[in-house]
Amino acid sequence: MPAIDAARFLGRLAALAEIGRDDKGRLTRLAASEADRAGRDVVAGWMREAGLDVRVDRIGNLIGLWDPAGTGSRPVMMGSHLDTVIDAGAYDGCTGVLAGLAVIEALRHAGRIPPRPLALAAFTNEEGVRYAPDMLGSLVYAGGLPVEAALATVGIDGTVLGEELARIGYAGPEAPGFLHPHSYVELHVEQGPVLERDGIAVGAVEDLQGISWQEVTIEGAANHAGTTPMSLRRDAGVAAALLVAWLRERARAGNGRSVATVGRLRLEPDAINVIPARAVLTVDLRDPDAGRLADFEADLAERLDALAREEDVTVTVRRLARFAPVTFDAGIVRAIEAAARARGLSVRRMTSGAGHDAQMMARLCPAAMIFVPSVGGISHNPAERTEEADLVAGAEVLRDVVMGLSGV
Amino acid sequence: MPAIDAARFLGRLAALAEIGRDDKGRLTRLAASEADRAGRDVVAGWMREAGLDVRVDRIGNLIGLWDPAGTGSRPVMMGSHLDTVIDAGAYDGCTGVLAGLAVIEALRHAGRIPPRPLALAAFTNEEGVRYAPDMLGSLVYAGGLPVEAALATVGIDGTVLGEELARIGYAGPEAPGFLHPHSYVELHVEQGPVLERDGIAVGAVEDLQGISWQEVTIEGAANHAGTTPMSLRRDAGVAAALLVAWLRERARAGNGRSVATVGRLRLEPDAINVIPARAVLTVDLRDPDAGRLADFEADLAERLDALAREEDVTVTVRRLARFAPVTFDAGIVRAIEAAARARGLSVRRMTSGAGHDAQMMARLCPAAMIFVPSVGGISHNPAERTEEADLVAGAEVLRDVVMGLSGV
Repeated sequence: MPAIDAARFLGRLAALAEIGRDDKGRLTRLAASEADRAGRDVVAGWMREAGLDVRVDRIGNLIGLWDPAGTGSRPVMMGSHLDTVIDAGAYDGCTGVLAGLAVIEALRHAGRIPPRPLALAAFTNEEGVRYAPDMLGSLVYAGGLPVEAALATVGIDGTVLGEELARIGYAGPEAPGFLHPHSYVELHVEQGPVLERDGIAVGAVEDLQGISWQEVTIEGAANHAGTTPMSLRRDAGVAAALLVAWLRERARAGNGRSVATVGRLRLEPDAINVIPARAVLTVDLRDPDAGRLADFEADLAERLDALAREEDVTVTVRRLARFAPVTFDAGIVRAIEAAARARGLSVRRMTSGAGHDAQMMARLCPAAMIFVPSVGGISHNPAERTEEADLVAGAEVLRDVVMGLSGV
Repeated sequence: MPAIDAARFLGRLAALAEIGRDDKGRLTRLAASEADRAGRDVVAGWMREAGLDVRVDRIGNLIGLWDPAGTGSRPVMMGSHLDTVIDAGAYDGCTGVLAGLAVIEALRHAGRIPPRPLALAAFTNEEGVRYAPDMLGSLVYAGGLPVEAALATVGIDGTVLGEELARIGYAGPEAPGFLHPHSYVELHVEQGPVLERDGIAVGAVEDLQGISWQEVTIEGAANHAGTTPMSLRRDAGVAAALLVAWLRERARAGNGRSVATVGRLRLEPDAINVIPARAVLTVDLRDPDAGRLADFEADLAERLDALAREEDVTVTVRRLARFAPVTFDAGIVRAIEAAARARGLSVRRMTSGAGHDAQMMARLCPAAMIFVPSVGGISHNPAERTEEADLVAGAEVLRDVVMGLSGV
């Protein structure tokens, strides 16, 4: 079996994590920034050293092709992203790109010529911190958004994505989607606590949660906290609290697959001795099953109607975002399970709670993901960490699955 | 019976409400401001016209004495305050001062010589908007705070109360408490919805709620809203919501006398897709009974302990303020009821949910309050209003009670 060069793989992860540190030592490589350019330059160099034909498309996706047999057929693609959040960890995204590179190098070093070519992608602006939406590069690659619209995106700093890509030298000539993959496999850190909690080495990601974001505004009546009897109140804060409690119970009452979060909640007039007239809160619902997600949304709408009657408040809802759930390719998921078991690794099927480039690529070709444990479930944080052994095991499973898909 | 000059009383209320309007027409007479000076000057003039001996004490309380018999004995005092909140209504405070003046004028006009003198007080900084605490003037008058400490109070605008009183000419020579009242009766608008809801003309205020203000901080753990199963969450926002819901139920479960309000609630990090790590909320508990208020506080402490265990969060509590309940003088309360009934007015005993100067004066002498209905329960708002007939009826009840107390 072609061996992964673990030392090189881990060394590159560490080296990449040094690119984009600010004067306080915080790692930040926002999409199309100078730091992103520096990270891309280094990774593109490594790709060329590994013998890949490196191309850049119009939305800045960096794609290397390894077709030693010169077949010109659809490649098995690996990949992820190089951009980070602000004050990031070292593993999110980079793990998938560098593991893919390690897989190709392992095959090349072993003299293996895959019948089907391999490709490696680093997609633009996956994190969505600088430009919205997130997963923008893979979305455009998969045809979900016209490239012109994407290039015109204005970032949180007022910059235009197309201009910034040109500035850093990554506004390439290729049409997004120019290389149509045969299949796509992405290794990623879990960014959650499940694998570590259950002592599992590998997650075979069979689906990805649908996401429903809504903003709920509840309007009652401000009144004196001392002189207004409980029975005469129209307390928007109490109504909001009852909603938060209901959401938790509703999510718990399911089969453990639905999650609900109220991350933002604001009261007005926000005075200690005034009954809140207004509460504005966000509701984040996720479920890997489209029907269950729609059911949760319907139950929420019904609950809000009831709350308006019961609490004598007015409730309005604004939809902020909605992504349908994604089901990954069953064959690749089985191949991931089999590869893990064959290597003596514990494995479980799981759902991705976060969005990933793989969900966009699943529009183009069979796709799935491999998760490795996140220590403490911590992510988007400098404390983000995955054990070295888990990283290498993940890369080995990726190699085995890709070898199967490519027929080598 | 000496007649209240309703037109003059109502006309003065309207005139006083024109003093302190800003360029947007908003009425604001913060304590010891230029607007307060202007209001005081007008009212002091009316007091002198009515034959009162007008004095000012060191904390700026404006006190007029009418002792036509020259007895020098302890007076029956009426009063309230002239300062307002920002963008205030016309009735809060001024009603009590101007009704007291109308009572004295009625007796004087009728040629009645009360065996016990009458006094009228306009206390400094009742609202507490510019200087803390509220009810500062009557607190100092009743000996609850040394005058030197009160004069050194720094306001929200950085001013020093003593300097501002001197600037507006109301840093008087009298020692606070110089005139020890025989009894104190204060007419005030209800500032709540109870009288109007029940169609009652007069409230005989028998007690005043104790107030307990606490700030509760709940600390859980921030985590990804998508990747963290419900069972592994330590959601500070959910814990806060459960507390808000519990407070409402606990207040409702009592005999209708306890009220609980969460007016402020803040989540951190306040992001739609991040489970709240921290919630900070205020708890305002009120009850007219000291034992019940203490019980509520004890139950809250117990509930917080349970919440910390059940939700795996850390809870800390900071006490912000606490005022014990006040029980007014049963004899004066009965006299208010009797006077209202004798005039054919509906009357009910009630509790004041807000703080008033009368609670401080109750430390010095028998005291009670008369409430008249607030339209819509609205207060601290330009829409604050009390029907003219209710204002006059309140002044007449005040007159009758004061006549009884003074023996005229």
